[in-house]
Amino acid sequence: MKIICEREKLLKAINSVVKGVASKTTMPILEGILIQTNDNEIKLTTYDLEIGIEYIIESTVEEQGSTVVNAVMFSEIIRKLPDTEISITLNDNNLLEIECEGSLYKLATMNPEEFPELPKINIENSVEMDQKILKSMIRKTIFAVSMEENRPVFTGCLFEILDNKINVVAVDGFRLAWASNYLEKNNNDFKAVIPGKTLNEVNKIITDSFEKIKIGVSKNQALFQMENCKIVTRLLDGEFLNYYSVIPRNWETRIRVNRKDLQECFERISLISASVAEKEKKYPVKVKIDVGKITILCTNQTGDAKEEIYLETQGKELEAGFNPKYFLDALKVIDDEEIYIDFGTSVSPSVIRPIENEDYTYMILPIRMKD
Amino acid sequence: MKIICEREKLLKAINSVVKGVASKTTMPILEGILIQTNDNEIKLTTYDLEIGIEYIIESTVEEQGSTVVNAVMFSEIIRKLPDTEISITLNDNNLLEIECEGSLYKLATMNPEEFPELPKINIENSVEMDQKILKSMIRKTIFAVSMEENRPVFTGCLFEILDNKINVVAVDGFRLAWASNYLEKNNNDFKAVIPGKTLNEVNKIITDSFEKIKIGVSKNQALFQMENCKIVTRLLDGEFLNYYSVIPRNWETRIRVNRKDLQECFERISLISASVAEKEKKYPVKVKIDVGKITILCTNQTGDAKEEIYLETQGKELEAGFNPKYFLDALKVIDDEEIYIDFGTSVSPSVIRPIENEDYTYMILPIRMKD
Repeated sequence: MKIICEREKLLKAINSVVKGVASKTTMPILEGILIQTNDNEIKLTTYDLEIGIEYIIESTVEEQGSTVVNAVMFSEIIRKLPDTEISITLNDNNLLEIECEGSLYKLATMNPEEFPELPKINIENSVEMDQKILKSMIRKTIFAVSMEENRPVFTGCLFEILDNKINVVAVDGFRLAWASNYLEKNNNDFKAVIPGKTLNEVNKIITDSFEKIKIGVSKNQALFQMENCKIVTRLLDGEFLNYYSVIPRNWETRIRVNRKDLQECFERISLISASVAEKEKKYPVKVKIDVGKITILCTNQTGDAKEEIYLETQGKELEAGFNPKYFLDALKVIDDEEIYIDFGTSVSPSVIRPIENEDYTYMILPIRMKD
Repeated sequence: MKIICEREKLLKAINSVVKGVASKTTMPILEGILIQTNDNEIKLTTYDLEIGIEYIIESTVEEQGSTVVNAVMFSEIIRKLPDTEISITLNDNNLLEIECEGSLYKLATMNPEEFPELPKINIENSVEMDQKILKSMIRKTIFAVSMEENRPVFTGCLFEILDNKINVVAVDGFRLAWASNYLEKNNNDFKAVIPGKTLNEVNKIITDSFEKIKIGVSKNQALFQMENCKIVTRLLDGEFLNYYSVIPRNWETRIRVNRKDLQECFERISLISASVAEKEKKYPVKVKIDVGKITILCTNQTGDAKEEIYLETQGKELEAGFNPKYFLDALKVIDDEEIYIDFGTSVSPSVIRPIENEDYTYMILPIRMKD
């Protein structure tokens, strides 16, 4: 194998595929990047048996071939080489020779035949979206996926195509995040639950250089296809929550508030509430709604905190306990300047919605206060 | 105690003094900031029994007093408050009330009389310098202080005032870094060894807002005095190395090289040499000087690396082993574009010097190669 390739192009491909490299594994081959040539293309592949990533770049291929090289070492060397053409050759001793100006590196390689094959996917349903929209929908929901492995289906996000709308939903038993968007083209209805871990990687790999992303699903697998890069992942089994039916449609108390002001209040008060928290959820803050005012209170051995904002209120007065982190997670990702928060009683869920957009709904359960 | 103070001013003072807060201590009072008023000034003090920092700001003091409050909690709250005036009051229950717009925080306090007093310093000698020069001299030497506690004097930098020049020197048994600068005014000769840990903090605290710094020393203490901020530290006992006498004046082989080019070569080759290193110094790289060329080589189970630079050489050919980290530490801090490296034999020290400036000398010992 002999390749001549621009460093910048190669580095971009490496930066994408390294996110699929296994970090803790007893199989050294999974710590590698599979390099394969095909005419005047190079394909880089990584696969940690959960997420597989392929990236194809054009390059001068003087001799066809394939090999596997340690991902960390290969990527660090390419990263530190000068920004010019790099020659990469598999020599007769199975060492990968990387040559660039006065630098010559020879790295040990592994047998490409031992690299596990990525699962083949027979795509049954698919949807194409703008990368910016997909990225935003993931960002607005992923923090709410469950960390509890005992109900695996909730460690992922539901992707639901329904009536030419895409809904992305995550729920962890304490809160539910639902982002939605209309699709440009007519599309078949389908749904699939994609692991949170995969979506995290997808979000890191998606960059402005990919405009459109096609998501295809088979029975057990999903495929994210961008121009010259694709990501495959398994799907999560099991019945997802009927999210639409659990979100309250009515409210007893409604406030209209500047998102950033409220975020800053919760950030400050978290300093006190989290200071003694072994488990965050055990140290709630008290939220009080009076006519024209919200007050947030927290008292523990560190100190005593009170935050007040004057605002527009409707309906009843209210007092309820909440984990400030659950508020903050949502307040940080909403782009809109103003939001509604609809409260029920002190033991029923509250709902956050942007004033102007219907593309995001966040439901949060209160915590019973100790007193 | 009741103070009204601009957040920005207060935060700047806090950011400086928190660097003197003890991190792991069994004495909670050392995790605090001592707040004292004096007419229309507030003094903030921290002291971890090694480094003490005082910072004075002007402010509206409505009621004189003093208290000690947990540094982390206090600084985080001030950091997150809106950028406006903050009212700080010690109430009758000894809680520190921090009030700003709709926010009210009450923090537990400690007894200011339990806060240890900073050592009094009878300054015997002092020198005044430009902050930029001091900062640069510290940066160019501090990485070479010894980490070995068995000879404490080498865990600090020598500050030597001699013939109207200031020399700052650090040495750890493998390399020696010496920065020097002419003083603007005539000055008494003196010397003192200041702990590396203090100098690290000094370098973080010194900002462009302080133009001049006065360094004063007594028998056992040093004082860094900036406008409204002072740092006190103990000095290290013991006889420092006679650094001037150990630096070779002659060379067998001299190269003239672009600093950045050489740095990049060592950075790349470190990827290979450090990949199998349990202790870096055990895996040296081989440096070969031939006429007009330097070659750096490293071979181990990860791979094989060769770096070549064509350059100006004088004297004999040479082959010697070095720890690439020791080269890199110096190459990273030299501002000049071109440097000389003067080599002796494969077992005698080498010396790095900028071509144009005589203000920096770095000596590095070779490592005996295994083959």
